[in-house]
Amino acid sequence: MSHPASPVPLVEIWRGPLAESRHTGHAVICDEAGGIVEAWGDPDALILPRSSSKMIQALPLVESGAGDHLSSEQLALACASHSGAPAHTSRVAAWMADMGLSDADFRCGPQMPMGEAARDEMIRAGETPCQVHNNCSGKHAGFLTLARHLGAGPEYVEPDHPVQRACLAAFEEVTGETSPGYGIDGCSAPNHASTLLGMGRAMAAYAAATEGGDARKAAMVRLREAMMAHPDLVAGEGRACTELMRACSEPVALKTGAEGFYIAIIPGRRMGIALKITDGATRAAECVIATLLVRLGVLEPDHPTARKFMCPEILNFRKIVTGEIRPAPQLLA
Amino acid sequence: MSHPASPVPLVEIWRGPLAESRHTGHAVICDEAGGIVEAWGDPDALILPRSSSKMIQALPLVESGAGDHLSSEQLALACASHSGAPAHTSRVAAWMADMGLSDADFRCGPQMPMGEAARDEMIRAGETPCQVHNNCSGKHAGFLTLARHLGAGPEYVEPDHPVQRACLAAFEEVTGETSPGYGIDGCSAPNHASTLLGMGRAMAAYAAATEGGDARKAAMVRLREAMMAHPDLVAGEGRACTELMRACSEPVALKTGAEGFYIAIIPGRRMGIALKITDGATRAAECVIATLLVRLGVLEPDHPTARKFMCPEILNFRKIVTGEIRPAPQLLA
Repeated sequence: MSHPASPVPLVEIWRGPLAESRHTGHAVICDEAGGIVEAWGDPDALILPRSSSKMIQALPLVESGAGDHLSSEQLALACASHSGAPAHTSRVAAWMADMGLSDADFRCGPQMPMGEAARDEMIRAGETPCQVHNNCSGKHAGFLTLARHLGAGPEYVEPDHPVQRACLAAFEEVTGETSPGYGIDGCSAPNHASTLLGMGRAMAAYAAATEGGDARKAAMVRLREAMMAHPDLVAGEGRACTELMRACSEPVALKTGAEGFYIAIIPGRRMGIALKITDGATRAAECVIATLLVRLGVLEPDHPTARKFMCPEILNFRKIVTGEIRPAPQLLA
Repeated sequence: MSHPASPVPLVEIWRGPLAESRHTGHAVICDEAGGIVEAWGDPDALILPRSSSKMIQALPLVESGAGDHLSSEQLALACASHSGAPAHTSRVAAWMADMGLSDADFRCGPQMPMGEAARDEMIRAGETPCQVHNNCSGKHAGFLTLARHLGAGPEYVEPDHPVQRACLAAFEEVTGETSPGYGIDGCSAPNHASTLLGMGRAMAAYAAATEGGDARKAAMVRLREAMMAHPDLVAGEGRACTELMRACSEPVALKTGAEGFYIAIIPGRRMGIALKITDGATRAAECVIATLLVRLGVLEPDHPTARKFMCPEILNFRKIVTGEIRPAPQLLA
């Protein structure tokens, strides 16, 4: 696989009179027919969607019936990169206990909580993180739920495990592509590659899915609605997914991914967004997704949360404003 | 000021079979005559050198005689972005006490220690950081030492304060350029812009300076030697500047700067390096500086520290190797 070609400037980091740093990338807005509404850079760029594909990795869980008994909160956690706060870990731990499983049954690895409060509390208490604190533990509880339903073995992150084979099949179906390969994610599960357009198309399908459709569409609706109902569970307090989902003027599902990925599912417009920052910077991915939500009219440009992520001020250690993050002119054109 | 033009690919982030992310930038190696030995991207790109200019900001301290009584350790701290470990803060606090000054006399602002051990210790103790923990506190102790020598007022980070006017004059002289403007740094001091080439030229001057020269050359030697004598004070345990300075096969002074800046002073070659990663990523700046040190033959490519920064493996939460950081082919050509 070659590297994506021709990214375009998307975000500028200003300090005083100078654009000190700049982020390039690719972004695409798709409609329900899978067509491109707007694109920046190369929609055919090969990408790893990372955690932005969690709602796809949760499709086999729902479609198989394995998740019929799961609550909306549990499905939101299956799609989450949660902060490892007690609100997240207590729910995931209870889910595991319901299955008679323990922390040792996870294969995601222990991670210090992403949320600062939870992290500091753990350091103060002299504790070390468990696997349930891993931001992906909800996804893994979902994998384990499906593995049990399928009567499959405990090594559920192996690429040839029935759970991962089902995830790959779902990924290729919703992106409409044969995946050219995969990387191993931070949580040890395979993460399959597609084009950016493939991910945009998939997100538009989630946006356009309705209750009266087939099992896939029903699963997409159930997962999308779970994410939108629980923005606090999909990420955590203070984080972009949570705050932007709350700030939008109509229901929108948002999901960040490592290395500068972001997606949006906008049911009211039957549109999906996928974007990748070339250098992997989160600050830039958050700026671009906020800018595109404003562009589509689902986020008011003057909303404090829109401003917080689209054009945040950069403060120094004395809280002096030293610069700001700005969408690049190419993104606003 | 417009943004630097035409950066080139310098670093690739691989995950499985995919170059998942990529960093572009500008880099220049200069000789003692100020000429370009090699360059990548645009040597005329306008940049803010950030903390990579601390040895320039320390020139007036030394040249004025204000720093005649200072130890090599204190001069290294004046050029440092230290980790806020006790080894750093105790020395800076003692320096302030020697002047009859306290933490309240700093204007750098409080910063949680950059070093993980010091940070965790502070969280465990329920303490909040002081200004002495700011990674720039040594530079500020130097500013205060100069301010006292000049009989100037306490607001030493104001751009028109005699200390900052002296820093600007030194910066323009060593870069050989009229600075087109400045930004306010994280520590509230002005940080002046130059071309990348200007910084490369300045670093080559530090490399070529000898004891028998004028006051400027003598000051350059004293600061360079202080940095090289105390790699642990210039940054901290585990950090790139400290580890790479220790690993080089001949004495080299290295200094990182925020937003993907890095410099090297190589006295044995009478050469200087300056580089800027377009997107501001530290992981890329560290990869490029290590690669260029290997290229110049002052760092063995098989040294574990060279490998740690030039082509580190990316491990996930289960310590599985999921990818690696690599210098881009353009950088190795």
